[in-house]
Amino acid sequence: MKYLLLLFFPLSLFSQLTTTDFKAVRLKAGIQNKQFVYQVSFQGKQVIAPSTLGFDLANPSRPLDTFELIHIDSSTSNSVWRPVWGEEDEIYDFHKKVVFHLKTNSKPTVLLDIEFKISKEGAAFRYLFPKQENLQHFIVKDEKSTFHLSENVLAFWIPGDYDTNEYLYNTTRLSEVDALKAAALEKDIAVTALVDSKTIQVPLMLKSDRGLYVNIHEAALIGYPAMLLSLNKNNYSFTSHLVPDAVGNKAYLETGFSTPWRVINVAEKARDILSSRLIVNLNEPTKIAKTDWIKPQKYMGVWWEMHIGKGTWQMTGGKHAATTENTKKYIDFAAKHGFDGVLVEGWNKGWEDWFGNWKEDVFDFVSPYPDYGLNELKEYAKSKGVKLIMHHETSGAVTNYERRMDKAFQFMKDNEINTVKTGYVGKIIPRGEHHDSQWMVNHYQRVAEKAATYGIMVDAHEPVHPTGLHRTFPNWMSNEAARGTEFNNAPTLGIVPEHQTILPFTRLMGGSMDYTPGLFHFELNQFEKERKQKVLSTLAKQLALYITIYSPLQMAADLPENYEKHLDAFQFIKDVPVNWSETVVLEAEPGEFVVMARREKNKGNWYVGGITDEQARKLSIPLNFLKPNKKYQAILYKDGADAHYASNPSSYQITKQLVDASTNLSVDLAAGGGIAIQILEL
Amino acid sequence: MKYLLLLFFPLSLFSQLTTTDFKAVRLKAGIQNKQFVYQVSFQGKQVIAPSTLGFDLANPSRPLDTFELIHIDSSTSNSVWRPVWGEEDEIYDFHKKVVFHLKTNSKPTVLLDIEFKISKEGAAFRYLFPKQENLQHFIVKDEKSTFHLSENVLAFWIPGDYDTNEYLYNTTRLSEVDALKAAALEKDIAVTALVDSKTIQVPLMLKSDRGLYVNIHEAALIGYPAMLLSLNKNNYSFTSHLVPDAVGNKAYLETGFSTPWRVINVAEKARDILSSRLIVNLNEPTKIAKTDWIKPQKYMGVWWEMHIGKGTWQMTGGKHAATTENTKKYIDFAAKHGFDGVLVEGWNKGWEDWFGNWKEDVFDFVSPYPDYGLNELKEYAKSKGVKLIMHHETSGAVTNYERRMDKAFQFMKDNEINTVKTGYVGKIIPRGEHHDSQWMVNHYQRVAEKAATYGIMVDAHEPVHPTGLHRTFPNWMSNEAARGTEFNNAPTLGIVPEHQTILPFTRLMGGSMDYTPGLFHFELNQFEKERKQKVLSTLAKQLALYITIYSPLQMAADLPENYEKHLDAFQFIKDVPVNWSETVVLEAEPGEFVVMARREKNKGNWYVGGITDEQARKLSIPLNFLKPNKKYQAILYKDGADAHYASNPSSYQITKQLVDASTNLSVDLAAGGGIAIQILEL
Repeated sequence: MKYLLLLFFPLSLFSQLTTTDFKAVRLKAGIQNKQFVYQVSFQGKQVIAPSTLGFDLANPSRPLDTFELIHIDSSTSNSVWRPVWGEEDEIYDFHKKVVFHLKTNSKPTVLLDIEFKISKEGAAFRYLFPKQENLQHFIVKDEKSTFHLSENVLAFWIPGDYDTNEYLYNTTRLSEVDALKAAALEKDIAVTALVDSKTIQVPLMLKSDRGLYVNIHEAALIGYPAMLLSLNKNNYSFTSHLVPDAVGNKAYLETGFSTPWRVINVAEKARDILSSRLIVNLNEPTKIAKTDWIKPQKYMGVWWEMHIGKGTWQMTGGKHAATTENTKKYIDFAAKHGFDGVLVEGWNKGWEDWFGNWKEDVFDFVSPYPDYGLNELKEYAKSKGVKLIMHHETSGAVTNYERRMDKAFQFMKDNEINTVKTGYVGKIIPRGEHHDSQWMVNHYQRVAEKAATYGIMVDAHEPVHPTGLHRTFPNWMSNEAARGTEFNNAPTLGIVPEHQTILPFTRLMGGSMDYTPGLFHFELNQFEKERKQKVLSTLAKQLALYITIYSPLQMAADLPENYEKHLDAFQFIKDVPVNWSETVVLEAEPGEFVVMARREKNKGNWYVGGITDEQARKLSIPLNFLKPNKKYQAILYKDGADAHYASNPSSYQITKQLVDASTNLSVDLAAGGGIAIQILEL
Repeated sequence: MKYLLLLFFPLSLFSQLTTTDFKAVRLKAGIQNKQFVYQVSFQGKQVIAPSTLGFDLANPSRPLDTFELIHIDSSTSNSVWRPVWGEEDEIYDFHKKVVFHLKTNSKPTVLLDIEFKISKEGAAFRYLFPKQENLQHFIVKDEKSTFHLSENVLAFWIPGDYDTNEYLYNTTRLSEVDALKAAALEKDIAVTALVDSKTIQVPLMLKSDRGLYVNIHEAALIGYPAMLLSLNKNNYSFTSHLVPDAVGNKAYLETGFSTPWRVINVAEKARDILSSRLIVNLNEPTKIAKTDWIKPQKYMGVWWEMHIGKGTWQMTGGKHAATTENTKKYIDFAAKHGFDGVLVEGWNKGWEDWFGNWKEDVFDFVSPYPDYGLNELKEYAKSKGVKLIMHHETSGAVTNYERRMDKAFQFMKDNEINTVKTGYVGKIIPRGEHHDSQWMVNHYQRVAEKAATYGIMVDAHEPVHPTGLHRTFPNWMSNEAARGTEFNNAPTLGIVPEHQTILPFTRLMGGSMDYTPGLFHFELNQFEKERKQKVLSTLAKQLALYITIYSPLQMAADLPENYEKHLDAFQFIKDVPVNWSETVVLEAEPGEFVVMARREKNKGNWYVGGITDEQARKLSIPLNFLKPNKKYQAILYKDGADAHYASNPSSYQITKQLVDASTNLSVDLAAGGGIAIQILEL
C-alpha cells in the first residue's frame, strides 16, 4: 500500500505540503497536483492517508476541485471554559489553527478557505466561503471531503439513512460493510430513507490493527445538512455524503458561511476517545447571557407504560394513560423519591390518528384531552415540588409545529412548564425533506433558540445526530438520536448487550443522550401476554447506565410499581447526580465494556459505572481518582453471582465497604451486566 | 361523430342513465359498463359527450374506476344571498342537486359519492369521500375526471404550469394547442414549471362552431391542489391534471372530504357566461359573523415607479422609492383625490437579495428600512384620512412567512394597517412545492383565515387561480393570478389589446382581480431611456377597465405626476365606485370586446365600461338598464377620433349628454381602445 501511495504522491511534491504538529498529532496539508490534499498521522502512524477536499456548487455552477494557494494563516490558542452543565467543571481547549486561503483554478474564480484545528485529541477541518465579489448565493450540489483510511479497519457503524439513526450497531471490517443488508434485518424503525449499501453514518468508530482508535464525526452542524460517509472499498476511503433536500440539493448558502467541522479523533487507548472534548470545543460559546434557569434534572414519565401496553397515548379505547389520576400517581412517586420532573405523553388531542398518514394538522400542542386536567395537575405538581415536563410530538409535521410553536411555548409558560420533550416520529412535512436535511437542521436550531427566549429547556427525540451544539445552545439539553430504551420493546432486534458499550464511542461523541435507562422489570409481557420481548440487561447494568451514558436530563424509565419492588436498588437512581465536576474514563473498549467515574457537581462524592457486553467480565477498578488521605464509604450495586442478562437479569446485590485512593476494587460483571458504585466522602 | 358515440355507448345502456333537466341544461349520469359516466347538453346541443369520472388512490392503493350504484339522492334548492361586497346586492342560487352514492367494484370496497349541481348556467360536480369503515387517510395519486368535448372547438388558453398563471392567452382550435411552444415565447415570467405540450389551465374558455360558449373551471378549491386540464387531441377530451407536491403526490386527504367542484358553464351568448354566478354559488357561505370591517377601497401605491425604473425596492443604490418623503407625496395625492389607501412596496429590509436564490430567511415583515419612517407615516396618513396598505412579499419562502405571520399581522394592527398585499415571487419554500400544490392552496387559506382574526383584508399576488372563495372568505378581497398591468413593462410580449377582453372569460370567472389599471403614460422610457416597452392601450380603455375588470380593491396604478397631466380624465377614476348594487353585461365576445354596466352601491348612478381588442369598433349601447322615466347626466370618456393604442394612446375626449332609458348610445372605440361612461341620476 505504501508503495502505491508513493506512486500517486511522489515525495518531491509531498515535501511542499505544510506540516503542523500538536503533540502526537501531525497534519500535512496543501496543494498537490492542483488538488487540495491533507493527511493526518498520530505517533508517527498514519491515520488519514492523503485525501482530497473540495466541493461541487450549483446555481451558479462551480467546480471547486482544483485550487491555487493564496496564503496560509496559523495560530495557537489555549483557553478554558466552563460549561453550563455537563461532565466536568472546566473544559480545556488547546489547539493550533491553520487556515489555507485558496482560490479555484477554474474561472470564474471562487475563493475558499479550508481551516484546520489540531489538538492532542486529533484534527478537524471545515470550509469557509469568504464574502467575495463574484459569489454570494449558491447551492451545494456535493461536498467532496474524503477520508482515506487505506486500511481495512474494524468499524462500528449503522446504515446511512436520511431519516433515522435508531439502528443497532454493526461491528465489521470495512470490507464487510453492507448497509442495505444490515438495514434489511431491522423491522421496527418507523421511518427510514436508506441511501445505498456503501453509505453509513457518523459518528463512526474505527479501530485499526496498528493499535489506533479513530472516530470520525462532525461538529457544530449549523445551517447545513448532516454528513454521512460513503465507503470506497477499493482503497478504504470515505467520501462525505450530505443529506439531500426535497429536490436533491444539499444546501442553500451565502458566502460568509462556514461548514460544520469534520472531526477526526484519534488515540492509542479507546478511553481517550471518550475523554476527548475536541468536538464540543469546535462549537461556538453560547450567546445566552443568563443561564441560571437551565437546570439538569431527573425525571419520571407517563411513557414506558404505553410502550408495553399498559396504557395508550390516545384517549379512545379505554386505556388512556395520561389521565389526571394516573399522572397524580407519578407525581406522588416522583415527589416521594426526590425527582425533579414528570413527563406526560399522550396528554393532548390528536393521538387517535397521529401516525403514518403524513398528515399535517395532527396536534395543536395546546389542547389537553378532556380526561387530562392540566390546571389541576399544574397546581398538584407545584404543591408537591415537582415540575411537569411537556411533550410536543410533531408526528414529523414540522410546518405545523413551526406555525404553532410560539403559542405552544407560551402555553407552557402559562402552565409553568419549562422543559419540553420534542418528537419527530413520522415522515417530515415539508414533504420530501428528511430528519437530517438542511431544512430540518435549521428547524432543530430554531426550536432551541425560540425555546430559550421562553426560558424553556429542550430534549429532542428523533432529531439529527448531535454535534456538540449544547455548548452554543445549553438549553438544548439532550437528544435521543440513537436506539434508546424504547427499543427493548421492539420485537425484531431489540437492544443487544453490546449496544450501550458502543453508544459512548458513536452517538455520545456529539453530546448527551436521553437514553432513558432504569428498567427494573425485564419481561415485557406484564400487560400483554403475547409479548416475547425482554430487556437484555441485568438490573445492575441499568443502574450503571446513569454513569456511562451522560445526560443532564436523566429519566427513570420504568413504572413506579416496578421500582417499588426494588427500592434498595432504586436508591442508586435517587442518589445519582445529573451534573458533574469531573469525569474519568477508567477503561473502555467499543463493543465490549465501558467503565467511568464521575465526581458529583461541587462535591467530593464519586459515582462509578461499569458495563459489559454479553460477556461476563472481571473488572479491576483502581480508585486512584479519589483524593489522597481521605476515607470514603462505597456502596456497590452489583450483579448477583447468578445474574445473567437473558436468564436472570434481576439478580443483584448491594454491598458497602470503606475505600480510599489506594483501593483497587475487583468486581465481577455478569454477562450483559454492570456495576454502579456510589462513593461518599466521609 | 354521433355514429361513433353510439358504438361506444349503445342506446339501450344509455337509457339507464339518470336524466336531470334544469331549463336548457340537461345532465345524464350514472353507471355505464361499470364506469361512472356523465354528459351535459344545452338547448339539445351536446356540451360534454359521455365522460368518465374516477380516481386513483395511493396508501392505501385503491383504483376508483369501476363502481356499483347504491342509491341516488336528488333535491332542488332556491335561495338568495347578499355578498359582503361585489357586483350586485343579491345573488340567486336556484339549482337541482343529484348525488350518486357509489361503491367500487374492486375489493376492498371504497365508498364514493359524486354530487352534481345543475342550474340554468350549467352543471358542476364534485366527489365526496364519505366517512367509512375501511378507509380514513389516503393519498390522491390521480384524479381522473374527464371532459369529453368531442369537437375541435376554439379555445382561449394559457400553458399548464404549476407555478404561474401569468401567461398571455392563446386563441386556437384545440387541435392547435401546444403549451410548450406557446410558453417558449414567454421570457418575462419569474418562475415557471411547465407540464407538457398538451396541458393547459383553467378557467378555460371554449367556443364551439355550433354556437355554444363553454367555460370549464373549478369552484371552492379548498384542501386540494389546483386542477389543470390535459388534452387528448384524438377525441378532444380533457382529463384533470392535479398539481403535484414535492414527492409527486397530489393530495393527502381524510374521508369526510369533498373535492372542489368541477364547473361547466354553458351559454348561447358569451355575455351570459360573464353573468353566471354558478361558481361563487358553489362556495360555502362565510363563517365570519361580523363583516363590517371589510371595506372595498381604491388605492394608489409606491409601486409602478419601481417597475419603470424611477425608483427601486431595495434601499441601496440611491433610488429607494419607499422613503418617508416619497410616501408622503403619495399620501398627499391620495388624500387630495379621495383615495382610501396607499400601498407601499419596498418598505422593509431584505430587498437587496430577495430574488432568485431560493433563500428562506429574506424578510421578517416587521423591519422597516431606516429611511422609511413608519411611525411618522402612520400619523401622517391618519391626519390625512388615508390608510397605509401593507406589503408582505414572501419571495416564495412561505415557511418563513408562516413562522412570522402572527407577528407580522400584529405589527400591522399596532400600526393601524388593515389591508395587506401578499406576494409570492419566487420558487416556493417548502422546496419542491408549487404555487398551486395542495400545501400552498392550504397556505393561502391559512393567510385569509388568520388575517380575518386580526381584522385584516388580503390581496394576494402570484397565488393559485381564484375559485369563488371570496364568498367564504370575504376578507380575501382580491387576487392577481393572471397577467396584470405590470406586464405592460415586460420586454418580450407585454400585454396585447385583446388580453383584457379574454380576462373576464378566464381569470375573472373565479373572482375579482387586482389588475391595477389606470396607466395614463404609455411610453415607459420616462426614467430609463433604453426601455422600448409601451402600454398597448388607449387612455379611455384604461378607464373602462375599472368597469370591465371587477375588484373591490381597485388601484390607480400610475404616478401622481402622470395623473396631474390629465386631471379631467382622472376624474373618472376618482368617481368610479368599487362596490356595486347591480351589474349588466351588455355585450361581450372573448378576444374581441366586452361592454358592461354597473349601478353604484345603493345609488341610482350607473357606470359603463366598454373595451375592444386591436380592432377599432363601433358600439351601440342601449341604456335600457336605466330606470324608466328618469333623466340622467352622462359623462363619456371616449377615445379621441385619432386615438390608437400603438400610435396615439393619449387621445381622448370627454363629453356630456342627457340620457334616459330609451337612449341608445353609439360610440366609436379606437383600435385597442375603450369607453368609460358615468351616468348620474338627476
